Amino acid sequence: MLIGGVDIGGTKMAAVVANAEGPLARVVQSTAKSGTPLAVPEQVLALLDEVCREANIQRADLKRVGICSAGPFISENSYLALATPNLCGGLPGAQDLPNDWTSIPLEKVLRSVFADVVIRNDCIGALIAERNFGAVRNVNDCIYVTWSTGIGFGLCVDGHVLQGKHGNAGHAGHLLLSEVSQALCGCGNRGDTEGLISGRNIERLHGRSAADIFEAARQGDQASLAIVNEAAQWFGKALYNLAVTLDTRVFVIGGSVWLHHGDWIKSTVQREIASRLPSLTDGVELRTAQLRNLVADIGGLCLVMPEDWIAEWQQTTPWKRLP
Amino acid sequence: MLIGGVDIGGTKMAAVVANAEGPLARVVQSTAKSGTPLAVPEQVLALLDEVCREANIQRADLKRVGICSAGPFISENSYLALATPNLCGGLPGAQDLPNDWTSIPLEKVLRSVFADVVIRNDCIGALIAERNFGAVRNVNDCIYVTWSTGIGFGLCVDGHVLQGKHGNAGHAGHLLLSEVSQALCGCGNRGDTEGLISGRNIERLHGRSAADIFEAARQGDQASLAIVNEAAQWFGKALYNLAVTLDTRVFVIGGSVWLHHGDWIKSTVQREIASRLPSLTDGVELRTAQLRNLVADIGGLCLVMPEDWIAEWQQTTPWKRLP
Repeated sequence: MLIGGVDIGGTKMAAVVANAEGPLARVVQSTAKSGTPLAVPEQVLALLDEVCREANIQRADLKRVGICSAGPFISENSYLALATPNLCGGLPGAQDLPNDWTSIPLEKVLRSVFADVVIRNDCIGALIAERNFGAVRNVNDCIYVTWSTGIGFGLCVDGHVLQGKHGNAGHAGHLLLSEVSQALCGCGNRGDTEGLISGRNIERLHGRSAADIFEAARQGDQASLAIVNEAAQWFGKALYNLAVTLDTRVFVIGGSVWLHHGDWIKSTVQREIASRLPSLTDGVELRTAQLRNLVADIGGLCLVMPEDWIAEWQQTTPWKRLP
Repeated sequence: MLIGGVDIGGTKMAAVVANAEGPLARVVQSTAKSGTPLAVPEQVLALLDEVCREANIQRADLKRVGICSAGPFISENSYLALATPNLCGGLPGAQDLPNDWTSIPLEKVLRSVFADVVIRNDCIGALIAERNFGAVRNVNDCIYVTWSTGIGFGLCVDGHVLQGKHGNAGHAGHLLLSEVSQALCGCGNRGDTEGLISGRNIERLHGRSAADIFEAARQGDQASLAIVNEAAQWFGKALYNLAVTLDTRVFVIGGSVWLHHGDWIKSTVQREIASRLPSLTDGVELRTAQLRNLVADIGGLCLVMPEDWIAEWQQTTPWKRLP
C-alpha cells in the first residue's frame, strides 16, 4: 500500500509518499498565494504528482492521503475550509498578501480526488508524529508546541489527541497574556502569545529578523539578550497556562526558534513554569522535537498510516533516510 | 443497588445517597478544618453515615461512592491526596486556616472502607452532571465553569472529559491574565484569573463581600458597577482563552456569583469572547448550569452511576425532589 502526507504552511508546502518500508520521496515548494483560492488545493495535487513521479509511482495509487495544515479551519457546507491569516489576504488582520481570499476550500477539492483523505491542524499532526516516532512516545499528557513564524499547539490529554468543534483545538497562540502590550497579532489581537513572541512579530516589533536577534543574543549582545529573555519569559508563561489548564506532563517543542535556540533559553522558560503552583508544575518537562523539520509531513503520513507500520518504523526509523 | 455521592468544598461538604429511582436523602455540613488531616476523610465517612441514617439504609450497603473535591490533587504513594489551599493551612499561600496540613490522604482512607470509590475534581463532576442532566446534554465540546469563592473548570473536548496526569485538568483559575495587577491568589500567583475575580479575592481587594458589590452594582451604584464590569471583562477574557485553546462550543456556568448575577453580566462576558478571532469564537454559547447548588453532589453520584440509570433519570428528573 502507498500513502501520501502533505504539510501546508504559510511559507512552504511539503509532500512525502511512503510504503510500509518507509518514505520513498519528499518534495518542498513555496506555498501558492495568488490566483483563486483553488490555487492551494491544486498545488497540493500538483505536489503529490511531483513526489509520486520522483518515487516512480502514480498519484492514483495513493490509497490514503493525510494533510497537515496551518489553521484555523472553518466549516463550509460541512466541508473543512482554511481561514488562515497567513494564506488568506481577504481576512481581517491578514498579512499583506497578493490575494483577497477569505477561505480556501481544501477538503471539498481533495475529496473529489481521493476517497480517503484526513485533514488536521499542523500541530496536531506534529504531535501525533512525535507520539509515534519522537520525544513523547508513551506519554499520555503532552503538548506539541511550535515556536516559529507563528506559535501553535497540539494537545494530548489522557492519551486523547484533542480536535475541538472544528478541529481548531490548540490555537493557544491566540491566548491573551498581556493587557499592556500593543504587540499586534495577525488575528487582530494585541498582547496574545503570538503577537508577543512569534518570529514574525519579533521582527515587526524590533525591525530585525528573529533569527538575527536570537543569534546576536547568543553571542552576548545585551540589547538582543533583553529581547530574547523577555520572549522566553512570555513563552514560559504561555506553557505554564497550558500546564495548569490541562495538567500536562511533557511539552515537546519544535519550530525554527526553538530548534536553533532551545538549548540555551530552556532554563528561562522552565523557571517561569516551575516558579508557580507546584502541585501542577512539579515534574513538567520540556523536550525538543526529534523529527525536527520533518515533523509535519511525517505527521501527515501518521494521520493515515496503518497501525502495524508504526511499530515497524519505530524499529527501522526510515524517515532518517530522507534528505 | 445503592450509591453515594459527596462534594468536598472549601466551605461545605454535602453527601447524597440514591437508588435507581433517584436520590433518597441529602445532608450538608461545614467542612472540617482542624485536628489531623484525617479529619476530612473521617468527616466524609461520618456524613455518609448520617445521610444513610436519614434514608434508612446502612452505609455498608453503598456499593459505590463518587467523590467530587476541590483540588489540586497530588499523588502520595500512588494514592490521590488533596493539596487544596482552601483546606490545607500548611501550604504556601494558604488562607489563615486553623491547621498546618500540607495534604489530606483522601483516597487511602476511603479505599480502606469502600471497594469501589471514584474521586474527581469538583468541576469535573459538575461537568459530568450537566452533561447527563443539565444544560449541555449531547454537547461534545463544552466547559463547566464555576464563578464562586474560587474559579474552576471542567473540560470536555470531542466528548472526552479531561483528567490530566493527576486529575487536575481544568485548574485554569490559575491561568495568568494580567502582568500588572498585584491581585494575590491563594496559590501565590499575582494576576491570575482567580486572583483577579474570585469571590474571595474581590472581597479582599475591595473590603466588601462580592455578594454586596454585585448587588449594589445591579442597583446602579457606579463604583460597584465599575468593579463588576472589570471582573466580567476578565472573566470573558479567561473564557476566550479557553475557547481558543480547546475550540469549545458551549460554556455552562455555575457558582454563586454567576447563578445570582449571570443574567445581567452575560452580555459583557459574551462581548469579550465574540470580539476576537471569529473563526474560533463564532457561535460560542454561554449557558447557566441547571443543577445549580446540587451540581457537585449529583456530580458525585454521576461518577459511579450505572449507565441505565442516566436515561431513566433524564425522564423522571428525581433530583428536583431534593430539598
